[in-house]
Amino acid sequence: MTLINENYLMLKSNYIFSEINQRVNNYSEANPEANIILMGIGDVTRPLPMAVVNKFEEAVKEMSHSETFRGYGPEQGYDFLIKKIISNDYLPRGIKFTEDEVFISDGAKCDTGNIQEIFGLNNKVAVTDPVYPVYIDSNIMAGRGGPMGEDGRYKGIIYLPCTEENEFVPELPETQVDLIYLCFPNNPTGNALTIKQLKEWVDYAHDNKSIILYDAAYEAYIREENIPHSIYEIDGAKEVAIEFRSFSKNAGFTGTRCAYTVVPMETLGYDTHGKAHSLNSLWNRRQTTKFNGVSYPVQVAAKAVYSPDGQKEIKESIDYYMKNAHIIRENLTDIGLRTYGGVNSPYIWIKTPEINSWEFFDILLSQAHVVGTPGIGFGPSGEGYFRITAFNTQENALEAMKRISNLSF
Amino acid sequence: MTLINENYLMLKSNYIFSEINQRVNNYSEANPEANIILMGIGDVTRPLPMAVVNKFEEAVKEMSHSETFRGYGPEQGYDFLIKKIISNDYLPRGIKFTEDEVFISDGAKCDTGNIQEIFGLNNKVAVTDPVYPVYIDSNIMAGRGGPMGEDGRYKGIIYLPCTEENEFVPELPETQVDLIYLCFPNNPTGNALTIKQLKEWVDYAHDNKSIILYDAAYEAYIREENIPHSIYEIDGAKEVAIEFRSFSKNAGFTGTRCAYTVVPMETLGYDTHGKAHSLNSLWNRRQTTKFNGVSYPVQVAAKAVYSPDGQKEIKESIDYYMKNAHIIRENLTDIGLRTYGGVNSPYIWIKTPEINSWEFFDILLSQAHVVGTPGIGFGPSGEGYFRITAFNTQENALEAMKRISNLSF
Repeated sequence: MTLINENYLMLKSNYIFSEINQRVNNYSEANPEANIILMGIGDVTRPLPMAVVNKFEEAVKEMSHSETFRGYGPEQGYDFLIKKIISNDYLPRGIKFTEDEVFISDGAKCDTGNIQEIFGLNNKVAVTDPVYPVYIDSNIMAGRGGPMGEDGRYKGIIYLPCTEENEFVPELPETQVDLIYLCFPNNPTGNALTIKQLKEWVDYAHDNKSIILYDAAYEAYIREENIPHSIYEIDGAKEVAIEFRSFSKNAGFTGTRCAYTVVPMETLGYDTHGKAHSLNSLWNRRQTTKFNGVSYPVQVAAKAVYSPDGQKEIKESIDYYMKNAHIIRENLTDIGLRTYGGVNSPYIWIKTPEINSWEFFDILLSQAHVVGTPGIGFGPSGEGYFRITAFNTQENALEAMKRISNLSF
Repeated sequence: MTLINENYLMLKSNYIFSEINQRVNNYSEANPEANIILMGIGDVTRPLPMAVVNKFEEAVKEMSHSETFRGYGPEQGYDFLIKKIISNDYLPRGIKFTEDEVFISDGAKCDTGNIQEIFGLNNKVAVTDPVYPVYIDSNIMAGRGGPMGEDGRYKGIIYLPCTEENEFVPELPETQVDLIYLCFPNNPTGNALTIKQLKEWVDYAHDNKSIILYDAAYEAYIREENIPHSIYEIDGAKEVAIEFRSFSKNAGFTGTRCAYTVVPMETLGYDTHGKAHSLNSLWNRRQTTKFNGVSYPVQVAAKAVYSPDGQKEIKESIDYYMKNAHIIRENLTDIGLRTYGGVNSPYIWIKTPEINSWEFFDILLSQAHVVGTPGIGFGPSGEGYFRITAFNTQENALEAMKRISNLSF
């Protein structure tokens, strides 16, 4: 008799975005005239840069001739892309990597979901709360979570609340933890950590032989000086941190699919006898066994992000989104809402005024025809908060703010 | 202290193709004048069909305009591709599926590697021997394999030998097994199962509440009438089988990356209380949590495989490879080697003449400058066999056979 993985039965059945879709669909059907502005899912709206599209097309053409056709590529990605990543994203910040420390993939969601496979089941996992659900769900599926308690927390996971009270900066855990998921600039709160704040975590990881799984998907939105773009800007991070990056949010690759993960040679895990092992070699074994590389034309397209024109175009797009973020933040503040984020990230995190986050969702949907994301969907500490994203046209951002400004809370 | 997944330490360190690469590199360096013909890795050599390239380019262009730009798509794949798959690959054989039974992915390697995640760790896993290593390695990583014994077999895996003695048709296991990996037409032996032979497995799975994980990556190479293209041609297969298909080998997508997996609504697994659960919904949960869909332009390219021009072009390519297969098989038979496969598959499986498979590899490399794959690399029952693939130019196939014909065994 084939047994299922019963850990799946412990997962909460309603993924937040399905519930949002359902409420929006129900409302649309009942109110077909409503012009709904979607500011919920964190998906980009601006097209791929022309510099990227041109190279993408050229690479597709290469696939039509025997002489230039490419079959299986390296599972870890092509060197031509890896070299660009190292020399553009790291070297200018004084961080050095060899090519076998960078792994190209089809998405940070896959990588942050799959990375837990190389770790033992008995590790204690800590996540910030609220949090991107993939970090938790992938650990529940593997059997690290236990059942969910009455409080909406899986019993085996350590939650690190990020709320107004601690200015959305997670405090070091009281008990010893092994795997720590950090995402900064943060989804969903929009907060970023300073170098000093992140250093505390690197030091903690050294003291406890923990590993930090650092999701830097939003680093391109950083505007302030003292905010690290990479965890490897912190001394000693290479020994204790794996970093995830993506072309989704900086270059509009959400539908094109390309990302990368850095696993430095120095990063170590331990077996039950206390012997150290290279996490780089474990991740390499994982990827070569269960992954077959990213589409060649997509890797060529990603390389073009680093061309001078590519860099200019992605800067324009990010500036565009960040202007939206500014508009949203200013308008919401003007009507008396307490808002956070939106300075080093495309996310604005709103404190809902004496109502819970689904109530706030329903008011915005029914009275302003604006869709955002209830904070509770990101974890128990997200209750009483609401996320709005800057990924939209300027016109829509202005229109949405005009409508919301007419509401009274 | 962060613990690693110690199951990884049980994996054999040398993946076969690394060892081949090393021996070829060593030989090339010592003999730089040697014109080596590679017939080892099963990678296509002919370019993408023009019908595919044209649509691929159009879709890339769509990504450059706000109006036609696509961000996140459905994790399960776009309906426009799923509909084509159902209506072209299944309906003509009388097999019906709804759109939520087909999951688009970036490769059959990923899907066949990841599928074990939805099953419990206590299932007994059976594989044919020789076998595509991903099926075994992904289960070892998860903890279903135990250590490797002296005989080159992981203790927790049930091996079903496929050799000359049983005409490369696996016999039903003597003990009860839960998960059964079958790949037909087979990699590496090139053998295909008849409808009658495959029906025995479907019946076994029904009798034992087992699940068959059916890899049909090579179905496009089937030439004989009584060979099923899909396991769902067998009555009752929907209840007990998941099927994996790919655009890699039929349409040259090894470097472009697109595949799909069919999980019928009827396919059931059980929890430890004996309660039945839909494997479709478990796989859907796995994919929506840890995967973010295939690149939009790639899905458009895959759709074009089903256009009349696309179908004509892929038929030409497959005919081309199968002519190579015929040339290889005839020539090797003429010099007295016993050869199998090559009739419904692009793989020719050679019985090595009184030497082992690495010795045969070294003779072919050093005396004919031809590279193939030693059978032992696919499992203990592959010892004494050797795989040559038809993926090459006709010129190279002829030249390789000319050189091998001059050898005496």
